Amino acid sequence: MAEASHKPVPLLKDELDIVIPTIRNLDFLEMWRPFFQPYHLIIVQDGDPNKVIKVPEGFDYELYNRNDINRILGPKASCISFKDSACRCFGYMVSKKKYIYTIDDDCFVAKDPSGKDINALEQHIKNLLTPSTPHFFNTLYDPYREGADFVRGYPFSLREGAPTAVSHGLWLNIPDYDAPTQLVKPRERNTRYVDAVLTIPKGTLFPMCGMNLAFDRELIGPAMYFGLMGDGQPIGRYDDMWAGWCIKVISDHLGLGVKTGLPYIWHSKASNPFVNLKKEYKGIFWQEEIIPFFQSATLSKDSTSVQQCYIELSKQVKEKLGPIDPYFTNLADAMVTWIEAWDELNTPSEAKSSKSANGVAAK
Amino acid sequence: MAEASHKPVPLLKDELDIVIPTIRNLDFLEMWRPFFQPYHLIIVQDGDPNKVIKVPEGFDYELYNRNDINRILGPKASCISFKDSACRCFGYMVSKKKYIYTIDDDCFVAKDPSGKDINALEQHIKNLLTPSTPHFFNTLYDPYREGADFVRGYPFSLREGAPTAVSHGLWLNIPDYDAPTQLVKPRERNTRYVDAVLTIPKGTLFPMCGMNLAFDRELIGPAMYFGLMGDGQPIGRYDDMWAGWCIKVISDHLGLGVKTGLPYIWHSKASNPFVNLKKEYKGIFWQEEIIPFFQSATLSKDSTSVQQCYIELSKQVKEKLGPIDPYFTNLADAMVTWIEAWDELNTPSEAKSSKSANGVAAK
Repeated sequence: MAEASHKPVPLLKDELDIVIPTIRNLDFLEMWRPFFQPYHLIIVQDGDPNKVIKVPEGFDYELYNRNDINRILGPKASCISFKDSACRCFGYMVSKKKYIYTIDDDCFVAKDPSGKDINALEQHIKNLLTPSTPHFFNTLYDPYREGADFVRGYPFSLREGAPTAVSHGLWLNIPDYDAPTQLVKPRERNTRYVDAVLTIPKGTLFPMCGMNLAFDRELIGPAMYFGLMGDGQPIGRYDDMWAGWCIKVISDHLGLGVKTGLPYIWHSKASNPFVNLKKEYKGIFWQEEIIPFFQSATLSKDSTSVQQCYIELSKQVKEKLGPIDPYFTNLADAMVTWIEAWDELNTPSEAKSSKSANGVAAK
Repeated sequence: MAEASHKPVPLLKDELDIVIPTIRNLDFLEMWRPFFQPYHLIIVQDGDPNKVIKVPEGFDYELYNRNDINRILGPKASCISFKDSACRCFGYMVSKKKYIYTIDDDCFVAKDPSGKDINALEQHIKNLLTPSTPHFFNTLYDPYREGADFVRGYPFSLREGAPTAVSHGLWLNIPDYDAPTQLVKPRERNTRYVDAVLTIPKGTLFPMCGMNLAFDRELIGPAMYFGLMGDGQPIGRYDDMWAGWCIKVISDHLGLGVKTGLPYIWHSKASNPFVNLKKEYKGIFWQEEIIPFFQSATLSKDSTSVQQCYIELSKQVKEKLGPIDPYFTNLADAMVTWIEAWDELNTPSEAKSSKSANGVAAK
């Protein structure tokens, strides 16, 4: 059953963290209460660390502001963006769970065509717990969904599928457009509910949006780095795109699957297109070189872990994208720092000490 | 507007032929009358040529039986299958139009979720007349549809898309399952209407079903050969699959797009799974080698026309698949014969004489 449900069973209750980057009080959680309350939240506070972020009563959470990030990571905190929602990836790093769901604080519960509230998290979990089909396209979409299967001509040897690393959800109402499209089509709204989940085929890149995204930390976590954006950086709004290109190349290399489609959330407010244009404009022309780079990137057989893949990719970024702008040299270095920090917080021997070094663990 | 409509405008009225393979009276056309009557039909009669096929009044059609095929193609008629719906590709060859829509005679008009009859042909035409996006995945599906666009992060240089060669439509009610799946799930029905059209990315193969299929003859016609199936052949039910693998490899090579999704037709009756198993069983294990062959097939830069690509592919089939079974050597030869016959009927100087040699051109 891929349909929305009013009575969510808290699947993976103790194995999943919800990561939310924010600069404001988290009133939006009220609407998500029936679905999120059983889970642990990791809130990454961006901007002024002295501001107090209010979290509605009854949620189980830990909150990190910039001071916490600096204290926990020391000099390696340089790899975590500031004044940009890219800071959310710090939450991925400090989580001790197998799965992550991340959502923006301007995203609300959407309704399916029958008028039922969509339990986005439940659908993401279903997406992650069923295999993907990256090696051959199934024309009836997700073959593991109830009432569906593989169609005639689908090779039987591929029907076990591949482990799913990432589940990319979509948005009703405000579509995730770039600044030029926002400017040209200020009134366009996404009202179409496409009742499908599909695997992005191997070798194909896609624009991954961080608004409504779930992934398996154990399978792909160390590649889910949102790059250098915001304060002191020449671009913004490419944090999730960067992560999307990297996770796709690495998932393809490691034989993992990436799904997109259901679930939808309700994206309430378009961000300012003029501000966005300023953040994006370098990315808009850089991506014309970045995407061919990722499309042709190959990793060596020796890279068998996500970390090894990511380090190898960082070297290729430095070599091939460095000539575009010094930014990419810095980014390649930050990719290495990110992996070092990830391993520091996530290796078993370090786990205890890092846990005690954690920030505000409130309830 | 990609939605179904009750008042179809006969788009491409003089540029599209509807090809129907059949062994029985075409009563199913009654239901399609509002949508098909403005168009010309090419009926390919399979089986006993002495049987008279009744076509409902008021349709404009030409009909070819086996005697006609033998007379028109002479010894080259060997490339056209007998006692198998693969014979339909003869209709693609004798058409003089730019576009083809082919449909099975057990397919009826489906309804969209609002209860409206779906004009499948109109949607196929829209799919063919708008570009495809084979080089990068758009997460909101077809960006050329009204109310949709390219999402943030989609490279601007790719937004013109690629010409669309093929539009693959789907089926409500009886899904297109292979015999083993039919046997295991005899009661499974497809009731899910997925409101999307999407491009199969470059480098990805898919199982193309011939039940509800449209294509641009000028762009891809000579590759739309349905192979050797049925009478005297060791397999059946792989005719459309074979064509699908070939057209996808060639479309990828030539920079053309292949779409799948809308429109749906209502597939009324499951074929007999025991009969199907007999037809399919060799294909089921052969495809485990055929698909890797097509996945790794590359064509030389010198092959710039569909015909050149197809001849090059036939040589690779002979060399790489021939060792599996003598069938593939015959098939490779038939691929060459098909191209020779195609060119004979479709080169301008030959067009007149072939036209006068046509079969029963009734109205």
